[in-house]
Amino acid sequence: MSLEGSFSKLTINDSTAPATALKALVFKSKTKSGAKPIVVVGLQETKTPANIIASATESKEPRLAKNEYFAQYFKIDDATKFNLSHLENSESEFFVVVDSSISALSEETIFSTNDDTIKFTKKSLEQYINSLSKADVKVIDFSKIPEASPITKTKKDPAATPAKKDSSSVDSKLIGVTVKKADDFSAWYQQILTKGEMLDFYDVSGCYILRPASYAIWEQIQRWFDAKIKKLGVQNTYFPMFVSSKVLEREKDHIEGFAPEVAWVTKAGKSDLEEPIAIRPTSETVMYPYFAKWVQSHRDLPLKLNQWNNVVRWEFKHPQPFIRTREFLWQEGHTVFPNAEDAQEEVLQILDFYADVYKELLAVPVVKGKKTEKEKFAGAVFTTTCEGYIPQTGRGIQGATSHYLGQNFSKMFNLSVESPLGKDHPKLFAYQNSWGLSTRSIGVMVMIHSDDKGLVVPPRVSQFQTVIVPVGMTNKTSAEEKNKILDTAAIIDRRLKAEDIRSTADFRENYTPGWKFANWELKGVPLRIEVGPRDVKENQVTVVRRNDGKKTTVSLDKLEEEIPKLLEEMHWDLYNAAKEKFDSHRVIVDEWKDFVPALNGNNVVLSPWCGVEECEEEIKTASAKKNDGENFEEDDKAPSMGAKSLCIPFEQPELKEGAKCVKCGEKAINYTMFGRSY
Amino acid sequence: MSLEGSFSKLTINDSTAPATALKALVFKSKTKSGAKPIVVVGLQETKTPANIIASATESKEPRLAKNEYFAQYFKIDDATKFNLSHLENSESEFFVVVDSSISALSEETIFSTNDDTIKFTKKSLEQYINSLSKADVKVIDFSKIPEASPITKTKKDPAATPAKKDSSSVDSKLIGVTVKKADDFSAWYQQILTKGEMLDFYDVSGCYILRPASYAIWEQIQRWFDAKIKKLGVQNTYFPMFVSSKVLEREKDHIEGFAPEVAWVTKAGKSDLEEPIAIRPTSETVMYPYFAKWVQSHRDLPLKLNQWNNVVRWEFKHPQPFIRTREFLWQEGHTVFPNAEDAQEEVLQILDFYADVYKELLAVPVVKGKKTEKEKFAGAVFTTTCEGYIPQTGRGIQGATSHYLGQNFSKMFNLSVESPLGKDHPKLFAYQNSWGLSTRSIGVMVMIHSDDKGLVVPPRVSQFQTVIVPVGMTNKTSAEEKNKILDTAAIIDRRLKAEDIRSTADFRENYTPGWKFANWELKGVPLRIEVGPRDVKENQVTVVRRNDGKKTTVSLDKLEEEIPKLLEEMHWDLYNAAKEKFDSHRVIVDEWKDFVPALNGNNVVLSPWCGVEECEEEIKTASAKKNDGENFEEDDKAPSMGAKSLCIPFEQPELKEGAKCVKCGEKAINYTMFGRSY
Repeated sequence: MSLEGSFSKLTINDSTAPATALKALVFKSKTKSGAKPIVVVGLQETKTPANIIASATESKEPRLAKNEYFAQYFKIDDATKFNLSHLENSESEFFVVVDSSISALSEETIFSTNDDTIKFTKKSLEQYINSLSKADVKVIDFSKIPEASPITKTKKDPAATPAKKDSSSVDSKLIGVTVKKADDFSAWYQQILTKGEMLDFYDVSGCYILRPASYAIWEQIQRWFDAKIKKLGVQNTYFPMFVSSKVLEREKDHIEGFAPEVAWVTKAGKSDLEEPIAIRPTSETVMYPYFAKWVQSHRDLPLKLNQWNNVVRWEFKHPQPFIRTREFLWQEGHTVFPNAEDAQEEVLQILDFYADVYKELLAVPVVKGKKTEKEKFAGAVFTTTCEGYIPQTGRGIQGATSHYLGQNFSKMFNLSVESPLGKDHPKLFAYQNSWGLSTRSIGVMVMIHSDDKGLVVPPRVSQFQTVIVPVGMTNKTSAEEKNKILDTAAIIDRRLKAEDIRSTADFRENYTPGWKFANWELKGVPLRIEVGPRDVKENQVTVVRRNDGKKTTVSLDKLEEEIPKLLEEMHWDLYNAAKEKFDSHRVIVDEWKDFVPALNGNNVVLSPWCGVEECEEEIKTASAKKNDGENFEEDDKAPSMGAKSLCIPFEQPELKEGAKCVKCGEKAINYTMFGRSY
Repeated sequence: MSLEGSFSKLTINDSTAPATALKALVFKSKTKSGAKPIVVVGLQETKTPANIIASATESKEPRLAKNEYFAQYFKIDDATKFNLSHLENSESEFFVVVDSSISALSEETIFSTNDDTIKFTKKSLEQYINSLSKADVKVIDFSKIPEASPITKTKKDPAATPAKKDSSSVDSKLIGVTVKKADDFSAWYQQILTKGEMLDFYDVSGCYILRPASYAIWEQIQRWFDAKIKKLGVQNTYFPMFVSSKVLEREKDHIEGFAPEVAWVTKAGKSDLEEPIAIRPTSETVMYPYFAKWVQSHRDLPLKLNQWNNVVRWEFKHPQPFIRTREFLWQEGHTVFPNAEDAQEEVLQILDFYADVYKELLAVPVVKGKKTEKEKFAGAVFTTTCEGYIPQTGRGIQGATSHYLGQNFSKMFNLSVESPLGKDHPKLFAYQNSWGLSTRSIGVMVMIHSDDKGLVVPPRVSQFQTVIVPVGMTNKTSAEEKNKILDTAAIIDRRLKAEDIRSTADFRENYTPGWKFANWELKGVPLRIEVGPRDVKENQVTVVRRNDGKKTTVSLDKLEEEIPKLLEEMHWDLYNAAKEKFDSHRVIVDEWKDFVPALNGNNVVLSPWCGVEECEEEIKTASAKKNDGENFEEDDKAPSMGAKSLCIPFEQPELKEGAKCVKCGEKAINYTMFGRSY
């Protein structure tokens, strides 16, 4: 501690001077033990939301510290007596997060500590803070929307801010991901999404911005799936996003499933609405009264409608980009058949399409199966699903679901047709399906393929499939040679585009090739095509695969042939690598003693099971990690919670004669896949 | 009046019997003078919304009648003393709308009149009502969503319910439109949309269901426009639908324009939100804080984003399908440029695309121009627009708008880049545009082309372009001949589909060709292709154009050549007919005395104008039709209201030297197009 920094020396003694009170708050990062304490220094009126502090300090869910913490770090027992002068006491490193509103005030401003015991000028405050050798200082504008990336504005994120003229020599590591996938999966996930410019955080919690790089993936999924269902005779439609409470609540099981998550509009302009109106969490009850009206005869069947739309499920806990969001995009198909067989055939056909979206487009392996009674869709007779697996967390993740609703809704909504036997016979209620695939699929894809360098996007859906980067130009390169390189790059870009390859070329000046490489790796473009002096001379290019960095030399004469091949290869390499991981972490467990250890080993398990709902509950409870005493919140989706059934896979291991349920020991009826899950 | 129908004879005399009170309400239809009175008979607790009554009786905005009306029709002076027994008194026809909840009660139920003066059984009520010779009785389920079509459920709408086995002989007129376009434009519009299965009414007022026939049109528009803007380098994105009030209110002019129409979410599940959250009415304030974050250098410009999404503007008055709805679909483009020139060039480029959507896809002529200061977008520097015209009402209608925002928003949101001159120079605020085209365009198209037989959909956007109908098969037709006809029809359908013509074939049995013709005319399919015995023999088909019924014989050898030609011809015929109407009803008016008469002649007018906002206000007031004393509500969009400026057309009549403003007599600065409008 330098002498001039001692706070007492910088203070003024005029106790009558009018002063602006500053608060100094100490936060503790939630999970990282040994994480640096965070001191927030701000105007009294400045709100200092935890998420902004978290983002500024790259810490997780910071909370106000308790007395012990003050004692440990700042040598003061009573937190209420803490003020800025105690920062000198710290022997370990800590963050100081300074409210930028302070800088906006004039140099002459006089401040006081919260307890009004010490007064000081703005200048001496700055001097003091700068003198704190253990302090890692950030200046934050708390009035701004939280930064998307955990890199703060004071330490400008070069990925978001790449373009200063004098930044050409910037260390390429700086633009990259600063957290490893294996170390802090959740922070890594946020970084690669935001730095890869796929998504940004938004100032309404649980809502996210889909930037072009992710929306383009959604468009690929839409195009593929839309063509598939249109061939089945499905037509697109659009129903309103608002539902009256009366209609929403018509099917009781269904509304019980959704009620806690429904967002309600109660005001328009300054007027209160007569009745609150819900925003659809899904559209069964929105659509089916009209289906009932439109369908009068068996000749009106089948009725097959689909819509691409947004829905809202106001979940309060643990939002996660793509995976668990308050608003999301999806398609929802709603079909009506005169008999159960046709409906059930379609349910499985659609499930196959969903599995193919994962396998053929996103290079993600899934397991198809049926949900248990406990986990099925609210109001369905049965739910089929494709389930994925996230290796780092060992958790299962639901990919998409296709529901057979039977007559549950048709009876509620009187969706019926006359009996073919005549008017005197009872009306026949229709058989229905509903099925949905959402933008969650993009999150699954990102979690599975991406790495410590950033996004890895499978080629069939990537916004850009190839990026051409001119390389090897130095001060010694002649203008002619340089032009030749740039022209060749441009020609390659055009030739690939002519083949319907989504190509782009990076001609930005003031960036080194190394910076560009890192930048495009961050964005996950499948193939980088380097064009340098030697390539030009040899009529070739060097192609580098994003997933494994493998370099290939491709003759320009074979460009149109080789690039699509490399893209295809990469797709299947990604898929096979992911499949290998899923396959090796889907283990058969016949005895309960091996169940929790298998989960803890990041596996999902296949176990013989009795099919009884109470037993499923018990498995969940018994496989939960124990409450660690601090900040424990009960939440189904937290990893600490127990395993739930993911599905009863269609592809079953052979169930031995007399096999017993893994938990209760009663007769097992099948192998069910269990796992901790999202 | 038959003797047994006299109500007094049917009543019971046990005044102590517990009875269910019935209400009897009398409604008067709003506009049609001489329309039949409407008596609603229902349980006390049944809500009887005016829209359901309107739909059941095909009347317009029925309202509770006043004393005079009771006196006139039911010979009782005091409305409060009216009860069921007075129905006998009527000498003119009237509706009785009976609440179907009454039928649900047991035969033994005893009812009383509202005033409890008369008691009677359910059976005697039925007997009584059936005895009223002047009564047109409807039984209505008030708990159901209002019927889409003004045809009630009791008199089943065969368009929605086409398929009873014994209905093959149904009069083809019955399925058609029962109101003429020239007689009641608004009722006609509703009927053709609902009977043509383009749209259905929804139980949240102001929201409508886009059925496949209209959504398919939207998909055509999307495909076309999306390709155009992607060529300009625009990328698609998706921002959340929710906006915090703080962000929404950042730009003051802007929020003033939208505040009264904003829908607010205040609850989720059973919890109140800490702060109400708005649903986007448009996304300027949703997006621009993030633009400000992403754009750091002039190298990040231009930034060109677009989204296809839903927005909500909670207008309280006069919703109209497609034209004025609380939720609608649109695209909104938001672009950022380093200078004003590039931004302004794009604004006009986009406006050209919009005009082409109308002309090239929807066959609708529009006039391009600039909005006046009064009518420009809230927050824009200037707004460009393409304006259409609805001949039947003589009203102008805004087609789509493209706004140059200048630096208005960039200054608010600090969307700036460093000066190219260096860091020491002030930052440069960016120049922005926003532009939007909505599903309103479909409504404009429908209003303009459709006719008394139903929808007429221009071929380039129609869900189906051709419908093949087998004809001429009678009882005498041999099985062989019949098969030949059906096979030929199927082959034609396949051949057209192979040419990417959106074809369908109507093989439904139990419908006569005549019924099918009417049904497909209702739906507006551009070309009907008839295949009959003679056609088969002569290797030809008969093609009938929807717009004018013109028949052409086309040799099967030339099918692939001739059908596209006919479709193209039809497109331009529709366009030219509409253009002729618009051109002949866009009249130049130089003097005020001719202004209102021109408007009253269903014209929009081009007048020399001074450009002053107050003068525009005066024009509006002075051209309003006078309050007729009854039920007069002030509403900008009602036809009775005055003319507003539609745009200052880019194509200007020559303004004479020294021309005076049509209203105030000051110097005119241009010709401005005025009209009553939607």
